[in-house]
Amino acid sequence: MDILMGVGRAGLKPSGRPDLLLVLLPQTCKASFLFTRNHFKSASVLYSQGVFGGRVRALVVNSGNANCGVGKEGLLHAELMAKKVAERLELEEEEVLVFSTGVIGKPLPIGDVLSAIDSACDLLEPLDLKRASEVISTTDSFPKYDFLKRGRLEVFGFAKGAGMIHPNMGTMLSFVFTNAELEEGVIERLHRDVNERTFNSISVDGCMSTNDSFGLISLGLIREELQKVSDAVEEVSLSLAKKIVQDGEGATRLIKVVVKNASLQLKAKMIAQSVALSNLVKTAVFGKDPNWGRIVAAAGSTPFPIDQFKIKLYVGNHLLYDGKTHLKALEGARKYMERAQEVEIILDLMEGKESWTYYSSDLTYEYVKVNAEYST
Amino acid sequence: MDILMGVGRAGLKPSGRPDLLLVLLPQTCKASFLFTRNHFKSASVLYSQGVFGGRVRALVVNSGNANCGVGKEGLLHAELMAKKVAERLELEEEEVLVFSTGVIGKPLPIGDVLSAIDSACDLLEPLDLKRASEVISTTDSFPKYDFLKRGRLEVFGFAKGAGMIHPNMGTMLSFVFTNAELEEGVIERLHRDVNERTFNSISVDGCMSTNDSFGLISLGLIREELQKVSDAVEEVSLSLAKKIVQDGEGATRLIKVVVKNASLQLKAKMIAQSVALSNLVKTAVFGKDPNWGRIVAAAGSTPFPIDQFKIKLYVGNHLLYDGKTHLKALEGARKYMERAQEVEIILDLMEGKESWTYYSSDLTYEYVKVNAEYST
Repeated sequence: MDILMGVGRAGLKPSGRPDLLLVLLPQTCKASFLFTRNHFKSASVLYSQGVFGGRVRALVVNSGNANCGVGKEGLLHAELMAKKVAERLELEEEEVLVFSTGVIGKPLPIGDVLSAIDSACDLLEPLDLKRASEVISTTDSFPKYDFLKRGRLEVFGFAKGAGMIHPNMGTMLSFVFTNAELEEGVIERLHRDVNERTFNSISVDGCMSTNDSFGLISLGLIREELQKVSDAVEEVSLSLAKKIVQDGEGATRLIKVVVKNASLQLKAKMIAQSVALSNLVKTAVFGKDPNWGRIVAAAGSTPFPIDQFKIKLYVGNHLLYDGKTHLKALEGARKYMERAQEVEIILDLMEGKESWTYYSSDLTYEYVKVNAEYST
Repeated sequence: MDILMGVGRAGLKPSGRPDLLLVLLPQTCKASFLFTRNHFKSASVLYSQGVFGGRVRALVVNSGNANCGVGKEGLLHAELMAKKVAERLELEEEEVLVFSTGVIGKPLPIGDVLSAIDSACDLLEPLDLKRASEVISTTDSFPKYDFLKRGRLEVFGFAKGAGMIHPNMGTMLSFVFTNAELEEGVIERLHRDVNERTFNSISVDGCMSTNDSFGLISLGLIREELQKVSDAVEEVSLSLAKKIVQDGEGATRLIKVVVKNASLQLKAKMIAQSVALSNLVKTAVFGKDPNWGRIVAAAGSTPFPIDQFKIKLYVGNHLLYDGKTHLKALEGARKYMERAQEVEIILDLMEGKESWTYYSSDLTYEYVKVNAEYST
């Protein structure tokens, strides 16, 4: 009853490392998939979105090439990949989903990819989360995976992603599995909720990818209380999401923005996102500068009003503003920022009961370097 | 019938340079003012927004201190500045508008500011656009002003701004004057239209300021055809707006994004803005890399659908994508980007007749340096 994996090489990565991953589930499983909301989508996303009907048996993922911006040929290539897996392993073609990640605008060398699928099918081994993440990685600097066991309940997953990371999708490629049974209808709702609070609440650079996909797969081996499953899925998903931000291109530290006591959840989210995405806030965090003027300016720039004479702003536990400035607190905040690996910014709107947390990373010389020099 | 100016020093700039500007109009003029839509507003903006009633006689501007985030005391300070000018020059208090720009969160040393206003009133000279821009500048590296004479019609203005520049307001401080008569109702409409296509279509860093204000003042000396006035006001405003982007913190070149043949004007604007604001596009322009995948990914990330198999993308006049890739055109596009001081990106949606142009600047090491090291 193991999940199996196979690995192949299609020569898509400049390093020549393995770039094709096949994941075979022990049986057809209930699943929910969320794809990028970008209107310029990878052909692999278009294909998988089209065939997915709530059930999945196998995943095939290539990295190093996004299969995106290559015209309708890309759709054919995705279909050929699924067909190949289905034939070799005797599966239903529509239960094989296809994912791609990497450079945009280069046609897939489909012959090489199909050969790599052949090799992957030749040697199937138990799923190794670390290895799976490594195979699908591109600019990632470390593999992203997590495992949680709570009594009989198991939740585990792997992911990749470091750049072109921004909400409104399951960010980049993330696959989370649970041994718990989740009914149709229930799994989609749980998945959407968790996605909003995890992958849709992180950003590296505000740039929405063409290929993002986030899958939640229920192996259906045990029955467990829904809240318990939901909490565990959220914990693993958040862990993967935070690893992606931590590995954000050029990032030296995480930024955690908490907006609390808002009148609406959407308002809390939009304001937290605005602060987390602000290039001025991101460079201030890189510079270890408690530049709270930039934080409140970002907080005020959404369509939602804030009362500037009432709100409270903390960096770490240092109160810097509460309708008036606290210049003396700046020194403590500066010292906090010098040592914190995760810089916490807390904005208390003092008006309601809703809150939201959003994660991003700082903006550094290295981000500019990576992205000015990474070629088409 | 000259516009006069006076200059003072309140010690608000670390350099010790003049930081207080007074502009005195020859008589009470019809005017339209647009202020930042940021909900965390400078007290000077709150004050001027409150007293402005369609007519203005004098402007008083301090730079080096934003009079923002300092509690209700800031409102009193703005009022004292207006009162001082009104008393010294025997004007109606509500016809004196107050503007501030600079660091957020430090109380104005109001005694010094009022003394500076005194000195400014002591020596009034004809308005010098270059000098006026210099006095109100903060991180600007050059003064921003322009003058246009078309027959009897004159339009001229000055501005400041280099960082915290993003649409949804008149960006930073810009004052445009015309000798033409503009009726109430007409001036506001013309002003809003021009603002949308000029200051609201530029961005340096996506960060909306707390202090932005853009004023259009009609001296009412001649009567001229409205379209002619409107064109001239737009030309001067766009010239000032482009100078602000050109002086964007750390910028080495301008990015001009043209979205054409869209079904809706709003759609054209949102897509142009999404491309112009993308950190990945901005770093690619810095790296002189025709990385068109990042451009189409940004174009696809707004709520408006695009047809990825139909759109055409040009960098300069090099067609890089039209439903399929043109890998051979990349070399020409790369050469174009190496020499262009203004990199033009044209996206043809092939679906309608609306278009929009949006300006931004590239994202460089210098941007990170300026903003990681500029302290609170």
